[in-house]
Amino acid sequence: MPVRKPNFEPPFNIVRASHVEFGVRDLARARAFYVDCLGLIPSDDDNEALYLRGVEERNHHSIVLRRSRVPEIRALGFKLASEEDLDRAATWFTRHNLPTSFPDVPFQGRTLRTADVFGMPLDFYYRMDQSESLLQKYAAYKGARIQRIDHINCFTPDVQASYDFYSELGFRLTEYTETDDRDPQLWAVWMHRKGNVHDLAFTNGNGPRLHHIGLWTASALDILHICDVMATSGYVTNMERGPGRHGISNAFFLYIRDPDSHRIELFTSDYLTVDPDLQPIRWSLRDPQRQTLWGQPAPKSWFEEGSAFAGVPLAEPALAAQPIVAR
Amino acid sequence: MPVRKPNFEPPFNIVRASHVEFGVRDLARARAFYVDCLGLIPSDDDNEALYLRGVEERNHHSIVLRRSRVPEIRALGFKLASEEDLDRAATWFTRHNLPTSFPDVPFQGRTLRTADVFGMPLDFYYRMDQSESLLQKYAAYKGARIQRIDHINCFTPDVQASYDFYSELGFRLTEYTETDDRDPQLWAVWMHRKGNVHDLAFTNGNGPRLHHIGLWTASALDILHICDVMATSGYVTNMERGPGRHGISNAFFLYIRDPDSHRIELFTSDYLTVDPDLQPIRWSLRDPQRQTLWGQPAPKSWFEEGSAFAGVPLAEPALAAQPIVAR
Amino acid sequence: MPVRKPNFEPPFNIVRASHVEFGVRDLARARAFYVDCLGLIPSDDDNEALYLRGVEERNHHSIVLRRSRVPEIRALGFKLASEEDLDRAATWFTRHNLPTSFPDVPFQGRTLRTADVFGMPLDFYYRMDQSESLLQKYAAYKGARIQRIDHINCFTPDVQASYDFYSELGFRLTEYTETDDRDPQLWAVWMHRKGNVHDLAFTNGNGPRLHHIGLWTASALDILHICDVMATSGYVTNMERGPGRHGISNAFFLYIRDPDSHRIELFTSDYLTVDPDLQPIRWSLRDPQRQTLWGQPAPKSWFEEGSAFAGVPLAEPALAAQPIVAR
Amino acid sequence: MPVRKPNFEPPFNIVRASHVEFGVRDLARARAFYVDCLGLIPSDDDNEALYLRGVEERNHHSIVLRRSRVPEIRALGFKLASEEDLDRAATWFTRHNLPTSFPDVPFQGRTLRTADVFGMPLDFYYRMDQSESLLQKYAAYKGARIQRIDHINCFTPDVQASYDFYSELGFRLTEYTETDDRDPQLWAVWMHRKGNVHDLAFTNGNGPRLHHIGLWTASALDILHICDVMATSGYVTNMERGPGRHGISNAFFLYIRDPDSHRIELFTSDYLTVDPDLQPIRWSLRDPQRQTLWGQPAPKSWFEEGSAFAGVPLAEPALAAQPIVAR
Repeated sequence: MPVRKPNFEPPFNIVRASHVEFGVRDLARARAFYVDCLGLIPSDDDNEALYLRGVEERNHHSIVLRRSRVPEIRALGFKLASEEDLDRAATWFTRHNLPTSFPDVPFQGRTLRTADVFGMPLDFYYRMDQSESLLQKYAAYKGARIQRIDHINCFTPDVQASYDFYSELGFRLTEYTETDDRDPQLWAVWMHRKGNVHDLAFTNGNGPRLHHIGLWTASALDILHICDVMATSGYVTNMERGPGRHGISNAFFLYIRDPDSHRIELFTSDYLTVDPDLQPIRWSLRDPQRQTLWGQPAPKSWFEEGSAFAGVPLAEPALAAQPIVAR
Repeated sequence: MPVRKPNFEPPFNIVRASHVEFGVRDLARARAFYVDCLGLIPSDDDNEALYLRGVEERNHHSIVLRRSRVPEIRALGFKLASEEDLDRAATWFTRHNLPTSFPDVPFQGRTLRTADVFGMPLDFYYRMDQSESLLQKYAAYKGARIQRIDHINCFTPDVQASYDFYSELGFRLTEYTETDDRDPQLWAVWMHRKGNVHDLAFTNGNGPRLHHIGLWTASALDILHICDVMATSGYVTNMERGPGRHGISNAFFLYIRDPDSHRIELFTSDYLTVDPDLQPIRWSLRDPQRQTLWGQPAPKSWFEEGSAFAGVPLAEPALAAQPIVAR
Repeated sequence: MPVRKPNFEPPFNIVRASHVEFGVRDLARARAFYVDCLGLIPSDDDNEALYLRGVEERNHHSIVLRRSRVPEIRALGFKLASEEDLDRAATWFTRHNLPTSFPDVPFQGRTLRTADVFGMPLDFYYRMDQSESLLQKYAAYKGARIQRIDHINCFTPDVQASYDFYSELGFRLTEYTETDDRDPQLWAVWMHRKGNVHDLAFTNGNGPRLHHIGLWTASALDILHICDVMATSGYVTNMERGPGRHGISNAFFLYIRDPDSHRIELFTSDYLTVDPDLQPIRWSLRDPQRQTLWGQPAPKSWFEEGSAFAGVPLAEPALAAQPIVAR
Repeated sequence: MPVRKPNFEPPFNIVRASHVEFGVRDLARARAFYVDCLGLIPSDDDNEALYLRGVEERNHHSIVLRRSRVPEIRALGFKLASEEDLDRAATWFTRHNLPTSFPDVPFQGRTLRTADVFGMPLDFYYRMDQSESLLQKYAAYKGARIQRIDHINCFTPDVQASYDFYSELGFRLTEYTETDDRDPQLWAVWMHRKGNVHDLAFTNGNGPRLHHIGLWTASALDILHICDVMATSGYVTNMERGPGRHGISNAFFLYIRDPDSHRIELFTSDYLTVDPDLQPIRWSLRDPQRQTLWGQPAPKSWFEEGSAFAGVPLAEPALAAQPIVAR
């Protein structure tokens, strides 16, 4: 793939990936997983939804668990730099014939609800209610001691098209996977706004679907500890992959599944990407160290399963290349 | 000092230092410190006493907090290898004209209560009620994630005499501090039974008094975390010294004071000492890296303050050498 | 202090603090410290200078050690987003009657050499030769396993003036210290461009002088390890303060002095600051947990000693408030 | 299985597992692996053999690499408490019609060479040349920062017979695996002398063969780091299993294979086992958390491959039960 030049002057200024809303079938069961086991902090709570944040976060929430008949994803939230950016975003999406609305969203200011070319739901806003940071209330650190949301990773039926779309919005490529064909095809991309490896990533697959969200911890030992906790408190089968070191991003990781099968990555220690002359790193789809530096392949479920977006139809990918899958 | 040959055939077989009983003035306040903050596991609890253990321990308790008018130490507990060893111990102490009795002690089998030549109270027993090990119940890990008791450290008015006494009982010297005089005087000794640096240590000072007990954690990061917790939950002034790396023992440590000023050391990563040909390590009292490998001196309180044993008179040490003290 | 609104539309786009040049009296001695002990990677080397980088860095260097008759600082380097920003910077400094020149600087593209209102030397550039990242060449990790430069911290005789100057250039305030006067005076500020706590900080004092540069490590354990290494390889007296947890920034830290007394901070685990509505955190100069969350005061040297900028005259600060200093 | 009472009065006093001798086909290649990659310390070196130790060890060596036409194991070394114990051992083995000789062995005192009932070679000795401990020479810490040898693990064709044999010699059972039959059969045993989970373990399989030796590190992070190093310096296929947490022993582990396919375990954080009333822990062969607390099964090679003892014939095990194997 010819790597595109980053768009340093995007139509509006996205600061970072900031929150997601999960539809879950049983709020009490989800709370047991996210709060009692993982240690996320409840910011608010009613019969219909539970709002969660990490110990560092001042934004009111980074995860919303909402009671739902079926497991699904309701929104992917991105913070903008200002209210002017919000208006510029609305103009841009309207001009591109994509749906726009301004629903009332609890705990946050004016919110633009729209979608990308595949129908993937996007919420843009610039102001959220602020909660107390618990970063220096260490007695509140529990479970995996999760600090903050780091990124959102999605399946797309056309990685090239998703890459083109989000590049235009100013997301910058840091790493990518392509096939080894004479005319290489993009298999996956990692793109950022906030200055580390990614805010948003796409992998080739039946989509659009959410693959996972990544949550940041301060230390690899926090990730080892939550493995020990999950393995000995009834969640051993919720551990899907890892822990391990990624080739891509160099981060230390663990993938887990919540009781509705939504996938969460615990993630730490990637690298700084703010330099304008940063060259994206290319990985071959056939490189076994791409997924896990130590060589272990990801399981089949990891390539096939994801969370549907509420009401969004799925498409099969055109690209049929085959990653390395654990038997 | 001429180092004594270890006594490989002691009069009875002491397995390890196993528990202490602290007199505390306010059980609720002590519980807040030991359970809510440090994360020790309550094994039993009544109006008069709280019994605690670390996550690894199967012995019913390693710390007893007993309601008391004044802060004081009631007992230092050592586990013996068998009931025969208990009888041999009684014989030995009787023969040495030291007091012996067999009080009923909750949660443990036949117990010999005696004292050393300075009146330091000693409880010997060979069987304690066994509790469930929580070593693989990781959801129970809280606070400093304390695994087990490691050692007992006391002030003595005569280190040479204490060293001689406990050597005869089979404690083996691993490290010691002496003055730089032409005729060097012992300032401190570290002695073990269980195979690491110490079960019992003595330092020159007004005594006998308990200097501290050491509690084992799995990682230095557990110790850094409890620093963060204590510093942000009302216990910042309970942190007396450290964290740091000891010269002696090479362990990573933190010294804290409980609400009754009893001193606790969190301690990890010393070394194996089972070899019969292990040569004790000599330290000069004037070596600044003896206390802390990184050079920081201990505060004055650390050299002067300790917990009295109930009803045991104190004596000033004959040796007046001066350690390096922080101003 | 009334906190200023961040300048989201600065006159030119500074990406981050990227490198410093230290004048050192003995290159071999400096190399032993920085390469053999700390483990920085030599990128280039001649009779006059040694160029160093962390394992993550693709920029050719983040530290230049240059042979010098006296210890001093030659340049503070900041990366800009583009060549257009470089020209805009030149225009801006010229318009503000500050000195500008475009010296040839090895290994980097066009470079604007200028100074702030106190004469503090600044190098702006937008392109540096790129070296291989060793982030995934783990066999190259040595010593403190330093990943990258994080920040630059300076003494200024007028924190308010320095804050005003760099605010106009788009640096955003994250934390600050002020006196408890009825009319509070700024004592120190932490300001960032790259999205964590700081690229540039100022403390009240005889200045301008460099206080320290901060180097990022992946784990607090890397910092504990370099303490152990320094303490046992002839550098124990080069350890000035810490290790510990900062109140400000929440980072885990160690301050060390190089053989020319230049101060280096090893630093890890602060937090994300990209949100436009992030509220700066205020600290009182009299808060003992400001410097070290665990309560230990910094030593006198830490408040008084720094590295002069070559040829730049010093001024005493107007503000005479007194921080908490270890005796 | 009815658990046997420990033999607290063994015929001679074995202190611990202390060293092994590996036959390797290419000394330079082995040195690159053990010294350059893993970071073991060379104690001595000639054309025929390389002697290695961990940073803590004062014994001259814990691993001997000896040039050999084929990969094989020459000796398993156990330290005794005294010379009298050596003579008692010779008497005991002679009385049991097992071979005894007293070969000259470099760097150690009088050595009894003998074998167990399956022909597994055993070297007993009580004194080895002492080397400088590098425990506080932190600049010498490289690679996995290995501290010391921890244990020896072997395949045996009859676990019950091996358990009986070594129980009589005073090894104490800490954990065991058995089948779920009405008449359960022993599948594996972990037995200790030095006070943690094991000095010697046996697993059912074609034997006798060495399964692996375990080397102790101070932290799980040291094990994660060596994964990163091996994966990026040409040793990725030498990583056989892990890293992970064992169910049995609760230790954090990584299994690797040297260039001659000898298996090494990096191992840390098990627990104290000195109590005479310690009850062994039973595991079912069908419990998936037995091998890895987090649920991952071991690969086929882990159950099938091992290192033959020089000149010792192999036997197939009578017990044909099937462990859980990764596909």
